[in-house]
Amino acid sequence: MKTQVAIIGGGPSGLLLSQLLHTRGIQSIVLECKTKEYVLGRIRAGVLERGLVDLMSEAGVADRMKKEGYPHEGTLISYGDEEFRIDFAGHTGRSVMVYGQTEVTRDLYEAREQSGGIMEFNVDNVVIEGADTDTPQVTYEVGGETRRIACDFVAGCDGFHGVSRQTIPLDVRREYEKVYPFGWLGILSETPPLNHELIYANSGRGFALCSMRNENLSRYYIQCSLSDKPEDWTDAAFWEELKRRIPSKYAEKLVTGPSIEKSIAPLRSFVTEPMRWGRLFLCGDAAHIVPPTGAKGLNTAASDVHYLYNGLRDFYENNSTDGIDTYSTKALARVWKAERFSWWFSSLMHRYPDQSEFDLKMQIAELEFLRSNTAAQKAMAENYVGLPY
Amino acid sequence: MKTQVAIIGGGPSGLLLSQLLHTRGIQSIVLECKTKEYVLGRIRAGVLERGLVDLMSEAGVADRMKKEGYPHEGTLISYGDEEFRIDFAGHTGRSVMVYGQTEVTRDLYEAREQSGGIMEFNVDNVVIEGADTDTPQVTYEVGGETRRIACDFVAGCDGFHGVSRQTIPLDVRREYEKVYPFGWLGILSETPPLNHELIYANSGRGFALCSMRNENLSRYYIQCSLSDKPEDWTDAAFWEELKRRIPSKYAEKLVTGPSIEKSIAPLRSFVTEPMRWGRLFLCGDAAHIVPPTGAKGLNTAASDVHYLYNGLRDFYENNSTDGIDTYSTKALARVWKAERFSWWFSSLMHRYPDQSEFDLKMQIAELEFLRSNTAAQKAMAENYVGLPY
Repeated sequence: MKTQVAIIGGGPSGLLLSQLLHTRGIQSIVLECKTKEYVLGRIRAGVLERGLVDLMSEAGVADRMKKEGYPHEGTLISYGDEEFRIDFAGHTGRSVMVYGQTEVTRDLYEAREQSGGIMEFNVDNVVIEGADTDTPQVTYEVGGETRRIACDFVAGCDGFHGVSRQTIPLDVRREYEKVYPFGWLGILSETPPLNHELIYANSGRGFALCSMRNENLSRYYIQCSLSDKPEDWTDAAFWEELKRRIPSKYAEKLVTGPSIEKSIAPLRSFVTEPMRWGRLFLCGDAAHIVPPTGAKGLNTAASDVHYLYNGLRDFYENNSTDGIDTYSTKALARVWKAERFSWWFSSLMHRYPDQSEFDLKMQIAELEFLRSNTAAQKAMAENYVGLPY
Repeated sequence: MKTQVAIIGGGPSGLLLSQLLHTRGIQSIVLECKTKEYVLGRIRAGVLERGLVDLMSEAGVADRMKKEGYPHEGTLISYGDEEFRIDFAGHTGRSVMVYGQTEVTRDLYEAREQSGGIMEFNVDNVVIEGADTDTPQVTYEVGGETRRIACDFVAGCDGFHGVSRQTIPLDVRREYEKVYPFGWLGILSETPPLNHELIYANSGRGFALCSMRNENLSRYYIQCSLSDKPEDWTDAAFWEELKRRIPSKYAEKLVTGPSIEKSIAPLRSFVTEPMRWGRLFLCGDAAHIVPPTGAKGLNTAASDVHYLYNGLRDFYENNSTDGIDTYSTKALARVWKAERFSWWFSSLMHRYPDQSEFDLKMQIAELEFLRSNTAAQKAMAENYVGLPY
């Protein structure tokens, strides 16, 4: 087979890139090692920056999001029984869109299918060859058969464990990592959300987050030990612990119910540099991971897609390599800022095993400074709604 | 002897409090365990917030400062060869005053002497008794003789190693501390300053600060190992190392010369709570220490003096205990914000022995965010010129 852009990975980054390229008549093939059902079953973040919302519109897949999503113009931050609000709209004129990553992915699949986009599922043993030449190829196995795609470019949208990053030689790659000494235990429940905006809670017992998907679907998280297993936590124990970590006025009105999903995610900061090697470009989790505090994962992937999509357009429409030549530098400049924000917000909100009493006081002092200082709130809001592309 | 306020410690906090009380006809006696010459020989910070400048004016000791001090409307921050400026005046409408702590102390001594203020030097074995009663007393020895002061209140302005904090019972006190794994090697030299504003430098070799006292007196610092001794560093080695840590365009024009003072200071964050016990009030270093990054030490002492002075006025002029009853809470609220700023700015600018490559990237990402984000610059400027009292 031949195509212009071989896209490794059928998650939201790969699908969004494929759909955006399609709107410009640029061909692509998407390879996914799991099934579509598996990809759609992954519960992920659900807070979209304006940049991603705009890309969805440009890709022609924004209709359902605009109808069913919830624009949020602020968020609450609590510590103990204290709380304050960061007013996104007031500080930045922007809001974020609450719309699950699963829904984004579903809309993108539908659009790719309607446009006759080529997607291969259940592929195995993907190998990227000649990425450092002008004629890269991707080979893979599907249904016991080996196939080969000749292409102009390869987009590595295959996540942290994918083959794309590992295709870049070790002497070219530089990796940066921080592993956090705790996880997030998250549940989905068919209950009305505690609050119409998110609540990020710092408490003496650890972090908690009250989030939502829609008016009858709530998403809650509590910081947990890395040695915990989801089955260690009954629903009752989860609700009890959550209530202890949020201001009592909210705990009193929390509506609980059975969980329909319960899982534990570790927290990691990770970046690989560069994000381009020859004609291979890394996008999203293949190149970087953020801890989920502040919901920057999907949004940072979207900014990569933005830079890569525009670089490829520049190549095919204007015969210029400027956009692809500056891809890694531009994408990384924004990635590091999102990494900083996610690291800072995580550091501010969690309990760490090695925290001293002084460190705990620094958290409270920072929260009180943020609560009292308009400029600090504005800097926080600008990061939360998304720094400019 | 009898007085209204016994002030332990003849450094700038104690003298400023004494002089301010004097303007309102409130009597005080200042006890200092060293000589006046010793106190004046201590080289300390030299960047005064507006709040301190205003207190100096209120105390009637601002004339020389206004003539000889240097208002600074911004500061430079560098990392490697990159640099940017924080515009204090533009962001806050305020500036800071460069005027050495030694000069502040000298002006205060002169004013106290002219007003006939009672100051006892070379005192020994200071004991504060009955601080938790309405009739506290201070006993001390001087010239082999034991003396006693009966007073209404005791102001503990006697620094980190003083007796005042230790007078508060351990079951009442709570202390918070962070010791930094490095020191600052500082020199004074009779050379023109490198730049008319300060330069805070983050470099691969550690932090450096280019500061100044006047047009022919410069103050420079470099981060050093805690095991270093001042005599390990020749002047030539100091200048060579300083040049390596600042952008090359500045290194090229640095004017070097013999040092007239050279010393190493450790860095510490420390706070004790509460800052009041009965009729004993702690001010300045007796209650809290900040690392010198951002020059908050003397300024935070000044804000304590402001709250205590106003509390005591309220007591003597309005017969109200409101001001002294809220002293600890008000002073600590501002202290913790200054502690946060000093800790943040120190963390941003120094090399730490346990820093990972990711941590170093976070420093650069934070510097680049600060460089690019107006709101973050404004928050920094507001802290640097001094948060409101």
